[in-house]
Amino acid sequence: MNWKENYRLLKKILIPKLDHRLLKKIEEKINNKTKPIGSLGKLEEIAKQIALIQNSLSPKIHSPKFLVFASDHGITDAKVSAYPKEVTYQMVMNFLNEGAAINVFCKQHSIGLSIIDAGVDGEFINTENLVSKKIGNGTRNFLLERAMTREETLEAIQTGRELVRKESFSGTNIIGFGEMGIGNSSSASVLTSLFLNIPLKKCIGKGTGLSPKGLTRKNFVLTSALKNRNSSKDPLDILSNFGGYEIAMIAGGILEAASRRMVILIDGSIVSSALLFALKINRKILDYCIFSHLSAEPMHSLILSKLGKFPILNLEMRLGEGTGAALAFPIIQSATLMLTEMSSFEEAKVSRKA
Amino acid sequence: MNWKENYRLLKKILIPKLDHRLLKKIEEKINNKTKPIGSLGKLEEIAKQIALIQNSLSPKIHSPKFLVFASDHGITDAKVSAYPKEVTYQMVMNFLNEGAAINVFCKQHSIGLSIIDAGVDGEFINTENLVSKKIGNGTRNFLLERAMTREETLEAIQTGRELVRKESFSGTNIIGFGEMGIGNSSSASVLTSLFLNIPLKKCIGKGTGLSPKGLTRKNFVLTSALKNRNSSKDPLDILSNFGGYEIAMIAGGILEAASRRMVILIDGSIVSSALLFALKINRKILDYCIFSHLSAEPMHSLILSKLGKFPILNLEMRLGEGTGAALAFPIIQSATLMLTEMSSFEEAKVSRKA
Repeated sequence: MNWKENYRLLKKILIPKLDHRLLKKIEEKINNKTKPIGSLGKLEEIAKQIALIQNSLSPKIHSPKFLVFASDHGITDAKVSAYPKEVTYQMVMNFLNEGAAINVFCKQHSIGLSIIDAGVDGEFINTENLVSKKIGNGTRNFLLERAMTREETLEAIQTGRELVRKESFSGTNIIGFGEMGIGNSSSASVLTSLFLNIPLKKCIGKGTGLSPKGLTRKNFVLTSALKNRNSSKDPLDILSNFGGYEIAMIAGGILEAASRRMVILIDGSIVSSALLFALKINRKILDYCIFSHLSAEPMHSLILSKLGKFPILNLEMRLGEGTGAALAFPIIQSATLMLTEMSSFEEAKVSRKA
Repeated sequence: MNWKENYRLLKKILIPKLDHRLLKKIEEKINNKTKPIGSLGKLEEIAKQIALIQNSLSPKIHSPKFLVFASDHGITDAKVSAYPKEVTYQMVMNFLNEGAAINVFCKQHSIGLSIIDAGVDGEFINTENLVSKKIGNGTRNFLLERAMTREETLEAIQTGRELVRKESFSGTNIIGFGEMGIGNSSSASVLTSLFLNIPLKKCIGKGTGLSPKGLTRKNFVLTSALKNRNSSKDPLDILSNFGGYEIAMIAGGILEAASRRMVILIDGSIVSSALLFALKINRKILDYCIFSHLSAEPMHSLILSKLGKFPILNLEMRLGEGTGAALAFPIIQSATLMLTEMSSFEEAKVSRKA
């Protein structure tokens, strides 16, 4: 199949529409819990959304799973990051040795974790716990050429879909996505600017910690790249020009997860930029997404406000790896437990509002 | 001993000063973790605080415990709440039957939970899991008279201290406080106004869900009460005039917890109003407090901003019971695990910033 046929099929993905007829019953159930009406605030909103996704008054979380995709980016040749490119490879080793933040938080919450090599520049030897899906040794430098071919981009999307399908088959009904890729905040900035039609400058931040001078350089490089590439408005054209293998896999994963009615935990800017592509394919996936936190990277608040969504946490984090989503996970769990474990006014024989 | 002697002794409580010489080492340890510097945002601040409290580079959480104090309030005679007074008693029964929100969230996080009858208007029969410390059958109506005598107030404070001391002896080093008491947001409003010197009107909210009409009435009642009582600036005078048994016990508990170097999880407005009294006794306790969430009750943001503290969560909750603190608990846990479980750059052989 050529990429056009693959792209055509991708756009036909079926995303189930949530059945809002259940909403009244969900609200009734929540309002009958022994607490003042509305007093659990946003937790009640999360509970409603999960109940709708699972189409159940008693939603349950099964086998929570995080997929962390790692890849390198050719744009690092243009010195847009505070860290050397080798850190992508090194951090994958750190993930496999369970020493990174995402390992610690997933372990804390009994969340399963898989690390996927989407396109790291380097060979991993004797690393049986790594899921090897390498599409290339890093993307090309999008200052000079298209980061990925359209074929590669669709292959990455397809890979993300397959990985999520496998998780769904083994019983997972809530999934988080994380990423590691030195240089990927540059991709995310350009994607966000193009997908949301926001001036590029507003979408650029210091990433892993650029100096003011480095930030000026990043601005210059990305502005030049945007001029050089001159991509069309087609989402695939945009993603293949400026994206990354990990971003494309996450986009595919999000689409597949929504098609399988999974609860999707969105992390920070990079994962959100993947979501923006997925939304261009099918807007209905938004119903399945929970926004776990607000990243300190400036583009993220722009994304959330354009989507009209609230973040569960706002801890000024900007680490990536899925760490924001992992920290928000217990709150999501609390929301479902509120629905299934709390007593109603009748059960507890508590008087209602006077 | 008369109350004056008790009060004099209370003011002498020893609160250990945190040894900030450790701070540089803590920061070094955090900055050596495999993540961009500062990228875990507020989580790093929480980790630093807990490390200072425990005076350790590897702080650990032991036997987390929540104490929920329940009591009735005479001011409910003046119809200041959306719920009938009986709900206090009924909710205590709900706590004991493990059907309330705080039960669900404590169970979720393996937090121990004790329910204390500080002064509920009603007798509990065959309720072996209730800690009976009843000082009276509810406070007096502070629209007409002092809510508690100074003796009662100091007795409640002493009770809170004893209960926390017991928890400390059994190994607990992190403690959360919760409350249940129809009418207690009225107490909290007046206390906040007086302790922080903020106009009363700004401190009054709809509590468990008053109608606009009910809110007008609450405003009128509390304004009248403040005129009627005309209390001095003495903290005990203020607390005994307008407080509640549960609020006084929590204040004592906070003081004792700080004196024993425990991490203290502050919940919403009511617990914060107890904290304001405790701060008048000894300002140093603030170093031991973590502010778990921002309540939707308007006085709470005033309190946090006066204290210069940030809330971990902002989910527009206003339930009480300690639920905000329970939801924030896993985040606090994550902060300590970051310090103790994550690899350093050296351990993981990851390159540093270029």
